Amino acid sequence: MSQIKVLVAQGGGPTAVINQSLVGAVLAARAFTKVQAVYGARHGVRGVLQEDFVDLTSEDINHLERVAASPASALGSTRDKPDTAYCLQMLEVIKAHGITHFFYIGGNDSSDTVRILMEESQRAGHALSGLHIPKTIDNDLMGNDHTPGFPSAAKFVAQAFAGADLDNAALPGVYVAVVMGRHAGFLTAAAALARQGVDDGPHLIYLPERVFDIDRFLADVKCTHERLGRCVVAVSEGVHDASGQPIISQLAQRKGGSAERDAHGNVQLSGTGALADLLCEEIKNRLGIKRVRGDTFGYLQRSFLGCVSDVDAREARDVGAVAVRMALTHGASGSVAIRRDASAPGYVSEYALQPLEAVAAKTRVMDASFIHEAGNDVTPAFVEYLRPLLGSNLLQAARLRSRPVAKRLKPQG
Amino acid sequence: MSQIKVLVAQGGGPTAVINQSLVGAVLAARAFTKVQAVYGARHGVRGVLQEDFVDLTSEDINHLERVAASPASALGSTRDKPDTAYCLQMLEVIKAHGITHFFYIGGNDSSDTVRILMEESQRAGHALSGLHIPKTIDNDLMGNDHTPGFPSAAKFVAQAFAGADLDNAALPGVYVAVVMGRHAGFLTAAAALARQGVDDGPHLIYLPERVFDIDRFLADVKCTHERLGRCVVAVSEGVHDASGQPIISQLAQRKGGSAERDAHGNVQLSGTGALADLLCEEIKNRLGIKRVRGDTFGYLQRSFLGCVSDVDAREARDVGAVAVRMALTHGASGSVAIRRDASAPGYVSEYALQPLEAVAAKTRVMDASFIHEAGNDVTPAFVEYLRPLLGSNLLQAARLRSRPVAKRLKPQG
Repeated sequence: MSQIKVLVAQGGGPTAVINQSLVGAVLAARAFTKVQAVYGARHGVRGVLQEDFVDLTSEDINHLERVAASPASALGSTRDKPDTAYCLQMLEVIKAHGITHFFYIGGNDSSDTVRILMEESQRAGHALSGLHIPKTIDNDLMGNDHTPGFPSAAKFVAQAFAGADLDNAALPGVYVAVVMGRHAGFLTAAAALARQGVDDGPHLIYLPERVFDIDRFLADVKCTHERLGRCVVAVSEGVHDASGQPIISQLAQRKGGSAERDAHGNVQLSGTGALADLLCEEIKNRLGIKRVRGDTFGYLQRSFLGCVSDVDAREARDVGAVAVRMALTHGASGSVAIRRDASAPGYVSEYALQPLEAVAAKTRVMDASFIHEAGNDVTPAFVEYLRPLLGSNLLQAARLRSRPVAKRLKPQG
Repeated sequence: MSQIKVLVAQGGGPTAVINQSLVGAVLAARAFTKVQAVYGARHGVRGVLQEDFVDLTSEDINHLERVAASPASALGSTRDKPDTAYCLQMLEVIKAHGITHFFYIGGNDSSDTVRILMEESQRAGHALSGLHIPKTIDNDLMGNDHTPGFPSAAKFVAQAFAGADLDNAALPGVYVAVVMGRHAGFLTAAAALARQGVDDGPHLIYLPERVFDIDRFLADVKCTHERLGRCVVAVSEGVHDASGQPIISQLAQRKGGSAERDAHGNVQLSGTGALADLLCEEIKNRLGIKRVRGDTFGYLQRSFLGCVSDVDAREARDVGAVAVRMALTHGASGSVAIRRDASAPGYVSEYALQPLEAVAAKTRVMDASFIHEAGNDVTPAFVEYLRPLLGSNLLQAARLRSRPVAKRLKPQG
């Protein structure tokens, strides 16, 4: 292989560290002398289709490092899910530009795109190496201990709940915050890492891996509120009833409305505060609690500038570089995965290459061992799993220790 | 004055640095040898009424420093707005414990409480020194250049918009984020600090200081979306029509519903995603734009653990300490204010004492010179005003510089 031309693209929802993977791939490719050019496709596969490339072959390293430290997909992203016809068109562009190696940073849809593209290139007899570089705040890729982007989003969720819990302790009431994750509850579960003491919130955590029962939910909130005089709740946007219907649709229908749908016809869960508002309304109306507030963490949890796990940043850089080395040294295709060395004394991650079919269009959800049997919390095993991923820079808050002063007007019994 | 007993309390909405003021006051008081005790009232004036005090006289400094770095009111807060009868009851408790100096960290309602309390203590002939220590993310206290808590919340808003704008550039559409502030638009205006380049978002900023016209808003969004293919909008929760009716009520009524009200009978603006959702619906329905997403920054903007302006933290500490020194050295009462030395070459702040009447129950709003004449943006003067307050640790994102690759299949004209 004398002429090597590398193409990198980013697909799906952005993360805080997706540009680490981009820069990791670009710099690793530039380290190979046989690499003639490193292109980036603008807006993922759509940019490939439209021949919309930028040249990263000699982009200043200093500037690339600044981009690496910035959230959201610097090349632009897309929600396009290519079928065979789409991939064949992409292949025409790839051939026209003499691209030999394609790296797609994305989630399970993106890995499926690489899978189809590789099938079609083999069928067409065009020599192309295709690698999927993992990213997703949902942490839902098969065969991975965790995915780049998740730890930083989890750090955001943990620090948000740590602060919100202190706020709720200062002005008591019920606080419900909705966290991203349609099918996998990992990110919502990360709220548990906000706790330090026994009565710290979040006091209740609801995941899409379990059926959500509104009456059960209200009973849980009532119980905590009676015990502590306040209650902080983490709810996954994807919570659903036994039939699989999203709770957001169920509650919206009760009010005579309907939930919004996205471009793919799925009920729109993100970019709306509806679920938190509907749950708060139920709590106010049915439990008669006055101060009930709802937040939806929305896009901040994946794009907020200034909340990155250092472990995540390092690993995201690594998966980009590792993918390039695997492809350029061994001519490999596949999906890079992060594994955890269970035999190591501390936290040690390592990288593997798995077949695209193992990841493509599949969804990993939380293991039962991570979910409390009551279905309204996580287990210590989950906290143990997540803690090292949040890195060395996870902040912890401190509460004032109360040494009560004896009353003089109304002495205590 | 031989026996000095200091009481500190925190009122109103928490901020990221309100505990700096608490610790500043406590440590400054403890530095005076004549101070016999330093108490904290739990949950503001309510704790005074209920004789619910904690003893901070010998609380470990190391632990206090950790509390100072934690968001939300460590002593607990309250929404109580005491009247004369309430203040007379507080006075009984204050007398019973021999409190000589009362420090209330809070906003304009809290300063009004200190004002009433001082009037009643003078009327009763009880020697009490009362000081109001400023805090509020709304930045709406009269006679202050700015208020502690606002710069950190402004930093959160700026960094949130910086990330959200990159996210929106990656997956183009319309993004509307609602920011706290019922009457004063300072915090929403802080979104402007997210911008670096000319086409960076937020592209539109709507403040409660100007009448909000929904048709004008839609025309603005349409114009930006046509020009850039995307649009990022910052909207204050307090936007209202010409009659003063909140837009959230107007839109809710159109849909046959009504907006929630808080404990004081005001339309509930925070702790709900309704305004963002209603505005997004208008954009989808009337402009026919498909990808429209709304976020409400909610409680994160005041309580998120890990977003503090270093200038804000320092000044919040200072106002607590300065209040104590003014009271204990000069026997003063009043409200501490932060001023800016306009004659200094760089940013220099200084502290003054103003009469409680100057601040109490009054609201400062944005100066006309800070608001763009079109009513949908801020001016460079506002950016210049805010920039130094955000401190040395404001993050800035970097975008990839595009060097397009020449097309081979579809050569450009």
